[in-house]
Amino acid sequence: MATSLLSRQLVLSLQQNLRLTAPGCRYVSKAAAKTQVEFEYDGPSMKTEVPGPRSKELTKQLGEIQNVGAINFFCNYEESRGNYLVDVDGNRMLDVYTQISSIPIAHTDLLYSYCAFVNRPALGIMPPENFPEKLAESLLSVAPSGMSRVQTMACGSCSNENAYKAMFIWYRNKERGHNNPSDEDMSSCMINQSPGCPDFSILSFMGGFHGRTMGCLATTHSKAIHKLDVPSFDWPIAPFPKLKYPLEEFTRENAQEEARCLEEVEDLIVQWRQKGRPVAGIVIEPIQAEGGDNHATPDFFKKLRNIARKHGSAFHVDEVQTGGGATGKFWAHEHWGMDDPADIVSFSKKMLTGGYYHKDELQADKAYRIFNTWMGDPENLLEEVTRSGKTLLQGLYQLQDQYPNLLSSARGQGTFCAIDIRDDATRNSILLKARDKGVLLGGCGDRSIRFRPALVFKEYHVHMFLNVFSDVLAEHN
Amino acid sequence: MATSLLSRQLVLSLQQNLRLTAPGCRYVSKAAAKTQVEFEYDGPSMKTEVPGPRSKELTKQLGEIQNVGAINFFCNYEESRGNYLVDVDGNRMLDVYTQISSIPIAHTDLLYSYCAFVNRPALGIMPPENFPEKLAESLLSVAPSGMSRVQTMACGSCSNENAYKAMFIWYRNKERGHNNPSDEDMSSCMINQSPGCPDFSILSFMGGFHGRTMGCLATTHSKAIHKLDVPSFDWPIAPFPKLKYPLEEFTRENAQEEARCLEEVEDLIVQWRQKGRPVAGIVIEPIQAEGGDNHATPDFFKKLRNIARKHGSAFHVDEVQTGGGATGKFWAHEHWGMDDPADIVSFSKKMLTGGYYHKDELQADKAYRIFNTWMGDPENLLEEVTRSGKTLLQGLYQLQDQYPNLLSSARGQGTFCAIDIRDDATRNSILLKARDKGVLLGGCGDRSIRFRPALVFKEYHVHMFLNVFSDVLAEHN
Repeated sequence: MATSLLSRQLVLSLQQNLRLTAPGCRYVSKAAAKTQVEFEYDGPSMKTEVPGPRSKELTKQLGEIQNVGAINFFCNYEESRGNYLVDVDGNRMLDVYTQISSIPIAHTDLLYSYCAFVNRPALGIMPPENFPEKLAESLLSVAPSGMSRVQTMACGSCSNENAYKAMFIWYRNKERGHNNPSDEDMSSCMINQSPGCPDFSILSFMGGFHGRTMGCLATTHSKAIHKLDVPSFDWPIAPFPKLKYPLEEFTRENAQEEARCLEEVEDLIVQWRQKGRPVAGIVIEPIQAEGGDNHATPDFFKKLRNIARKHGSAFHVDEVQTGGGATGKFWAHEHWGMDDPADIVSFSKKMLTGGYYHKDELQADKAYRIFNTWMGDPENLLEEVTRSGKTLLQGLYQLQDQYPNLLSSARGQGTFCAIDIRDDATRNSILLKARDKGVLLGGCGDRSIRFRPALVFKEYHVHMFLNVFSDVLAEHN
Repeated sequence: MATSLLSRQLVLSLQQNLRLTAPGCRYVSKAAAKTQVEFEYDGPSMKTEVPGPRSKELTKQLGEIQNVGAINFFCNYEESRGNYLVDVDGNRMLDVYTQISSIPIAHTDLLYSYCAFVNRPALGIMPPENFPEKLAESLLSVAPSGMSRVQTMACGSCSNENAYKAMFIWYRNKERGHNNPSDEDMSSCMINQSPGCPDFSILSFMGGFHGRTMGCLATTHSKAIHKLDVPSFDWPIAPFPKLKYPLEEFTRENAQEEARCLEEVEDLIVQWRQKGRPVAGIVIEPIQAEGGDNHATPDFFKKLRNIARKHGSAFHVDEVQTGGGATGKFWAHEHWGMDDPADIVSFSKKMLTGGYYHKDELQADKAYRIFNTWMGDPENLLEEVTRSGKTLLQGLYQLQDQYPNLLSSARGQGTFCAIDIRDDATRNSILLKARDKGVLLGGCGDRSIRFRPALVFKEYHVHMFLNVFSDVLAEHN
């Protein structure tokens, strides 16, 4: 089967890549294949409200030590399988959210992700013998078009932070015309001053989310609570197109909206250059996820990429949430159909390790074939994602027609789908009611629900979800 | 034995803490105790120069994919044991550096650290059942004096980034007099502007190293190459005392130097407040590690802590390198002998997970007993570190007397020792020659060698090292 094949190959390859060939890890990988074949539950099963009494008790205990504001409930990961998450009160829920899309294939994989982080000094300074080979077999075999180099990192924020640094360094060397910093560069950077620490900027988009460390945070604009009280950089922020869905029905209005945003991008680049803070790079998500599952057309991204090229700014596509197959292609930016879609592509989460791909300006572009040796028979898996996604989106369209006062703007690529709810309060009530019926959903933006199932989410899981969702909506109409 | 007891308890406790109770991990922990008892090598054994032909070949391969400038050689981690690192060419080296102190107890532990990182969304939103209990048993049982709360993080940079954010938020709420942001706060922060993103600063020290993400990097001042071409914040940077060693012999001069630095700290705090960029926090390492193993006296730190309190700035002690036992105390700041040494203490590396402890201003201070339930019989282990460290430092003093033109400023706490070499070129030559003889050392600062052995580095390892080091020095005199 494609799924278990993919899962096994992915895990084996990454484990070997990361030197997890210790007995324990071989064991885990064997358990994986077995679990996925044998242990899928029949459906949700609810014993208590959620959070149940045990979760509440544990939240109270943890509250003595840490802030527990973000905690939903406590999990029993050992009992969680495939598309189902089991909590400490014995509730089994169909998981259409997978902890913001951080579980690559299925719940059993969560165990692997504990093992997948890497000791950075070891890899950077004294890597294990099979590191180059495994890197080539795994990460490079799915490299985005036009990219032949990959830099691995421990987490999503670090991936973006380091991608930004790479763009700054590239831009400065371009400005210098050579790679040799002056003595003044070297001494001024030690005290945070220019020219050593130049006044460069990264252009980002309102509604974007790129992480919470201070560099990333300066480009994150999804929720105030992420940014409040933290000093930031004076960097330009462009509007992201506010499109009408379904995109096919509003092509003219949407094209106007996209043109408006692109014009603003160019204006900002010129303004910031005049301010003495030139835009070294542009960072964007192929689908703004945290910000509300906001889509734009391939035409928008093509033109944006051209604007970056025209003004000499690097173009950074953040695929931390969208990469890994959920959109029906391995990288969401493949939907744009470009040979040279980006200068930098960052990833994390589903890839089990973080990092970024980048072009090597000094090397001739070499196009790596996507899905070459890594993935066994992945076309089947992505076909399945495409099929489940289509069923899901059609179901959402139907419900939207049925409840026009409640639902709007159903949208998606693959199973990476979302829909808007009348208002924030109704959205949150729907999330809770669905959970009480054993379906785990997540919100994004002001009033959206986002769907982030595992890659093994099949059509019958879609129908199971749609039935529950339909019941919940009836209660809110 | 204390060492294997500590190791087993630490690993078991952290594994359970991090939900690594899968079969694989139990297996690893059993292997640990066995390995440490049975598999310590007799001494170094060199087959080729380092890097040998296999390492060179692999470096070439990896160079096609990544920047390999930092790579020393490729390792065979399966054959590495206790204090010995084995490379892919079969060279076995006594490791007095442990990859910048990132291996907690011994080389066998490196395997664990692969497993010790955690899936953050899972822990923050849906933690496993035993999380509160294990957190209390492990990390909280070694909490610094006066601290009852701990926030776990995936890596050292993230730990410091988030500690800075915590200080900014704390400072801003203090300034407001309450925790309720205004509408203007909420809207201005979305576009990176004050008052939502206030112009606060963190005071750091020249020579300090706190990480490489952009917030951390603004407080890092050890090497230009870390900072070059990356935009930064206009934050104050104070001089770190340049003391003469041994400290006991230069008390008067050193006290003057420390007084000068403290005066500068106060001046900077006042200046930056007048500039409209008040100092929300002060960050410092108990021993500046990356910057050259620069020590200061307990008196300096006590006075600095008082200055922070006087001016209302948070006091952040970065123990990412110094925490975990190498100085002969679990936290290096315990050498200061204070009840209330800090507001925030960050950690990583040896603790197997990253994060920071912090005071809870809203709770009555509760003093957790250090080394309570976590560590079995840790006093013996720390006694051993103290004993090995003393032997090491005495040996360095003797060599310094013997080679006054070559060596100076031997210094250390526990086995966390360093010595200065005549110049950079000689230092680097000594590092290479020692490696050729099977002893792995590391540099720091302009011309220092730093010693960062594992906690199982015993007196006979010290003598083995001193013999080789003595031979190498004779070649350079």
